[in-house]
Amino acid sequence: MIIILKSGATDEQIDHVIERVESMGLRAHLSRGTHRTIIGVIGDESQFKPDSFQVLPGVADVIRVLPAYKLASLDAHPEPSVVTMGKVKIGGGHLGMIAGPCAVESAERMDAIAGSVRAAGANILRGGAFKPRTSPYAFQGMGEDGLKILRDTGDKHGMPIVTEVMDPRCVELVERYTDMIQIGARNMQNFVLLTEVGRTNKPVLLKRGMSATIVDLLMSAEYILSQGNPNVVLCERGVKGFDTSTRNLYDVAAVPACKGLSHLPIIVDPSHATGRPDLIPPCALAGVAAGADGVHIEVHNCPEEAMSDGPQALLPNQYTELAAQIRALSAIVGKSISNSPGSK
Amino acid sequence: MIIILKSGATDEQIDHVIERVESMGLRAHLSRGTHRTIIGVIGDESQFKPDSFQVLPGVADVIRVLPAYKLASLDAHPEPSVVTMGKVKIGGGHLGMIAGPCAVESAERMDAIAGSVRAAGANILRGGAFKPRTSPYAFQGMGEDGLKILRDTGDKHGMPIVTEVMDPRCVELVERYTDMIQIGARNMQNFVLLTEVGRTNKPVLLKRGMSATIVDLLMSAEYILSQGNPNVVLCERGVKGFDTSTRNLYDVAAVPACKGLSHLPIIVDPSHATGRPDLIPPCALAGVAAGADGVHIEVHNCPEEAMSDGPQALLPNQYTELAAQIRALSAIVGKSISNSPGSK
Amino acid sequence: MIIILKSGATDEQIDHVIERVESMGLRAHLSRGTHRTIIGVIGDESQFKPDSFQVLPGVADVIRVLPAYKLASLDAHPEPSVVTMGKVKIGGGHLGMIAGPCAVESAERMDAIAGSVRAAGANILRGGAFKPRTSPYAFQGMGEDGLKILRDTGDKHGMPIVTEVMDPRCVELVERYTDMIQIGARNMQNFVLLTEVGRTNKPVLLKRGMSATIVDLLMSAEYILSQGNPNVVLCERGVKGFDTSTRNLYDVAAVPACKGLSHLPIIVDPSHATGRPDLIPPCALAGVAAGADGVHIEVHNCPEEAMSDGPQALLPNQYTELAAQIRALSAIVGKSISNSPGSK
Amino acid sequence: MIIILKSGATDEQIDHVIERVESMGLRAHLSRGTHRTIIGVIGDESQFKPDSFQVLPGVADVIRVLPAYKLASLDAHPEPSVVTMGKVKIGGGHLGMIAGPCAVESAERMDAIAGSVRAAGANILRGGAFKPRTSPYAFQGMGEDGLKILRDTGDKHGMPIVTEVMDPRCVELVERYTDMIQIGARNMQNFVLLTEVGRTNKPVLLKRGMSATIVDLLMSAEYILSQGNPNVVLCERGVKGFDTSTRNLYDVAAVPACKGLSHLPIIVDPSHATGRPDLIPPCALAGVAAGADGVHIEVHNCPEEAMSDGPQALLPNQYTELAAQIRALSAIVGKSISNSPGSK
Repeated sequence: MIIILKSGATDEQIDHVIERVESMGLRAHLSRGTHRTIIGVIGDESQFKPDSFQVLPGVADVIRVLPAYKLASLDAHPEPSVVTMGKVKIGGGHLGMIAGPCAVESAERMDAIAGSVRAAGANILRGGAFKPRTSPYAFQGMGEDGLKILRDTGDKHGMPIVTEVMDPRCVELVERYTDMIQIGARNMQNFVLLTEVGRTNKPVLLKRGMSATIVDLLMSAEYILSQGNPNVVLCERGVKGFDTSTRNLYDVAAVPACKGLSHLPIIVDPSHATGRPDLIPPCALAGVAAGADGVHIEVHNCPEEAMSDGPQALLPNQYTELAAQIRALSAIVGKSISNSPGSK
Repeated sequence: MIIILKSGATDEQIDHVIERVESMGLRAHLSRGTHRTIIGVIGDESQFKPDSFQVLPGVADVIRVLPAYKLASLDAHPEPSVVTMGKVKIGGGHLGMIAGPCAVESAERMDAIAGSVRAAGANILRGGAFKPRTSPYAFQGMGEDGLKILRDTGDKHGMPIVTEVMDPRCVELVERYTDMIQIGARNMQNFVLLTEVGRTNKPVLLKRGMSATIVDLLMSAEYILSQGNPNVVLCERGVKGFDTSTRNLYDVAAVPACKGLSHLPIIVDPSHATGRPDLIPPCALAGVAAGADGVHIEVHNCPEEAMSDGPQALLPNQYTELAAQIRALSAIVGKSISNSPGSK
Repeated sequence: MIIILKSGATDEQIDHVIERVESMGLRAHLSRGTHRTIIGVIGDESQFKPDSFQVLPGVADVIRVLPAYKLASLDAHPEPSVVTMGKVKIGGGHLGMIAGPCAVESAERMDAIAGSVRAAGANILRGGAFKPRTSPYAFQGMGEDGLKILRDTGDKHGMPIVTEVMDPRCVELVERYTDMIQIGARNMQNFVLLTEVGRTNKPVLLKRGMSATIVDLLMSAEYILSQGNPNVVLCERGVKGFDTSTRNLYDVAAVPACKGLSHLPIIVDPSHATGRPDLIPPCALAGVAAGADGVHIEVHNCPEEAMSDGPQALLPNQYTELAAQIRALSAIVGKSISNSPGSK
Repeated sequence: MIIILKSGATDEQIDHVIERVESMGLRAHLSRGTHRTIIGVIGDESQFKPDSFQVLPGVADVIRVLPAYKLASLDAHPEPSVVTMGKVKIGGGHLGMIAGPCAVESAERMDAIAGSVRAAGANILRGGAFKPRTSPYAFQGMGEDGLKILRDTGDKHGMPIVTEVMDPRCVELVERYTDMIQIGARNMQNFVLLTEVGRTNKPVLLKRGMSATIVDLLMSAEYILSQGNPNVVLCERGVKGFDTSTRNLYDVAAVPACKGLSHLPIIVDPSHATGRPDLIPPCALAGVAAGADGVHIEVHNCPEEAMSDGPQALLPNQYTELAAQIRALSAIVGKSISNSPGSK
């Protein structure tokens, strides 16, 4: 931690800062410059609260040198983590191919979509039973009935399943049915919910919030990890941007940027990032080229009847074509796809 | 609702769109332009799902003419709403003066701060008992003990109290103690929580999310209103910006913009918006000048010992000076302050 | 300047960094922490190029302690600067009231508008003769004919004039006619143009770019100041935001933030910031409440016939009402308005 | 164009709008809905100024149906444009490999870097002779001497060259030396400069501004095209974002989004987009995977001595490795590289 003093800081103010540092069992290393004085703080930074120094008289700025997340950092775990669900792996060279409709709508539709994405090469099935909708008047999901349908469909087609949880009171219920629990972008800083899923033993798919920095995302992952659940997969799904020609701004550089800070796998979700079917395939390929550990795609066999988010779904044949391109690309970037019909 | 067709849309595609419109009991009004054809949809728009038309072949764009929120709109309630807590009113010409520490830390500290802000003219006391912290290792609040302290302190100083709830399982508990329930910015789209507070009979202070548009904010208010709770106060507290010189980007224009769309009161929170004590007073005054129905300010008597967010708190004497300026300004903009020692 | 080393930096790498620092005539102050080593650089920072250290092996980050702007900083000039044009002052307690149409369209219209804004209390007249338009097919301004009309109108009504220059080849021409030269937001980092206006002896109104930080704005001011022209007035006019309900995001906190860094006056332009007549008055008042040294407002007597930006203009009677409110508010915030009919 | 009226618009107001439409030689098609009335405008939209309708009493909104750019649109030119410089093509399946240092620094350095990037497979050489620097105290480029060095180096290594112009007075000079003229991001809306380069017969590399929408970028291209110069190559180089972990926010989705609107080639510049050497290769590959028509990379053989932007340059061996990966990837996405040593 580095404390930068104001140009006019008095000796008395500097002494007070040093006293505070030492009262926390840390050492202060004073460095007087021509224009400014800085204090390097030496010792266990986890004891150190930047805020309590920021407010001291004479202090201009406090700069954190070590990240505030620990378990999520490369220091804690220098090798890439691999998250495993049955025969499927994500991370460490393994590409997760997650596909399915936005919402579970009926057993028949789920079965039809699952059959086609499975044949195309998907290895994880998605579908929402609890839907976060901006309007209270919109379809909110099928609830437990949806969970049952998703479970049965996944089992029939030999795919682990992932579904979203929004309510801490439903974590136990969702955990009972699913192989992987999704935290949606709007709940990325719902710390109560993060704590609850951190207490389960199911892998968590943590989507980046629309205004979250990469560090914010890793801090939210830390909430889950700190509860004892080591299986977190990050997901870039677009941040808020100023250009309304796409739904969100797809931050593909977040993929390598995360890998420079954390061992956790990170996948991309071009469906939510762009909200436009014509942009999903090029952006999915871009994500894999940038090093993503998986691709999350919404697929629907009749978008005009979809209960939610129809406009951002690919048709099954569009997904089949994209999956073949992803397979070709994955070879170039050194990735393999486990338990996929199209892979060996 | 207006449906704009692609330049090459075929008659067959146009007919299909019209059929879909009519199958929903609505009427389609076709308008063939030189380059493009548009279809005006006439009838009860609440029946209309734009997504299901966006995906139809030949459709370029679907434009919503009426807002998706109803109860929050000026159409539903053309006069400004007034939210009342005992002797204190917010909205309709009444300015709420909310002040207090970020977190409840102890009965002594709470009493000291409450005494000074009350004397300065504050009419509502704030304090957090459950704190949303980006780090799982940071102070998370005193919980029910904090609620008790806040309740007692408010009663002693004759001020209604407001405190945040984060967990739907705690809504009943918080409701029991507080006069007003706060939903924090990170939970603005926690629809489960919005639904729960919508079922209470306590006023709700709904903070704008960091990447929420004004329409998003009103949609979240609609969640609460649609559950039967009419007492919602909106709060502008800064959105995500690209300039790190302030903590967030204080969107003061959101105040008059909201008033052009909704009857709900809207207050400002310059403490969270700017994160810097030197910017809080000018931004508080700016909010009142722009028409805000209240000002939310964090005050602490010893920021260097604050358990959270010390750097964004004003000292009691700074608040006293600011409150006097707000009172002078409120006269010019036609606002009065109910149950404030400084007002008549 | 502070150089933070990577956790695994070798002694050899650290020595190389120190050698580079010393080869520039500066001193390096080494501070070895538990996890990281930092080097404080002592001496004349203007000699120091952060980029050339950022790339050295073992370096994690280089942090600038002193700002890169000098002449614009409070260190160089601790008192607020006052910019004077005839009887009108901006800064140091003097409020500039700039008003007029977006573009000069004809002598008659200019005269009519000038007459009404002068009567309302404006003390500087604006009007564009060279217009930056996003479309090459839109009206580009009247050129020198427009300059002549503006000059004559200003003289007739006793107001200094301000007009925009876009082309370095036209700076001499514009300088000949105008009292103050405007640099538009899109040209804030047109360094060629900044250099040219820095060589004139006319005050410059420098508008903040749509994606410029406050430091970027001050760096652009530094370009002008470094050429010998000390008379720069900054202008906040909205930055790019994600909410399309306003044209731009009005960053009112930039006003006090700038005053904490620089002695230069800063005014606000709510017309461009919001693009909506209903938001202009509340946002103008917000700017003055936040400490702005002036208010720039577009006024047109027949917006439906305006050659550009009609929708963001106030009508003359709306401006009259706003100017009266600004006068009332200016008394509270300790500002006076020089050479204004409404002021004493 | 669609005009949406306010819910309380009077018949008189509606009639006035219709009169205005018809006075422009267009037809108005009235559609009265349950809650709102809309007017479709039929005829040559290029005659239509939305602003002049936006301000009419009773008008809520005016929606443009056709884009404001024409020559840049797919309607004007449905096939992808190909820009040719000697043996090198960009667009229509041809990938431009642009590489070189940020600034021309000396003949020796330029020769060394050109030799290595040429051997690696680059087919266009870049280097700046006029540098837009945020600080007036930073190196501003070698000027005409730099142009000469770049010309000689390109000729020696058999590569066309591209260099930036910032001053409309220098366009003729730059045109004399270079094969392609670059307009930097900060000048994307310098309409004077756009007009000047539109009058040359050299291809223009137009970089997207940091807060420019895709439509803004196409409008700026339209400025160049409308002057008679059909050879414009767009460039995505990152937009302003809120996360400081990357220099800008690399908007890779802009590549397919542009291709859906315009025939112009679009390349990517991950050097400026990310500002970090570790992110450049993955983001370059992401751009090609997303369909980019070229990749612009800064390469320097001694970043610590670079006169500008050293931290964002790749070393020659890093570029060699990246170029090989791009070649492998280009085969998958159906692109070829003309006049590249590594291609056939």
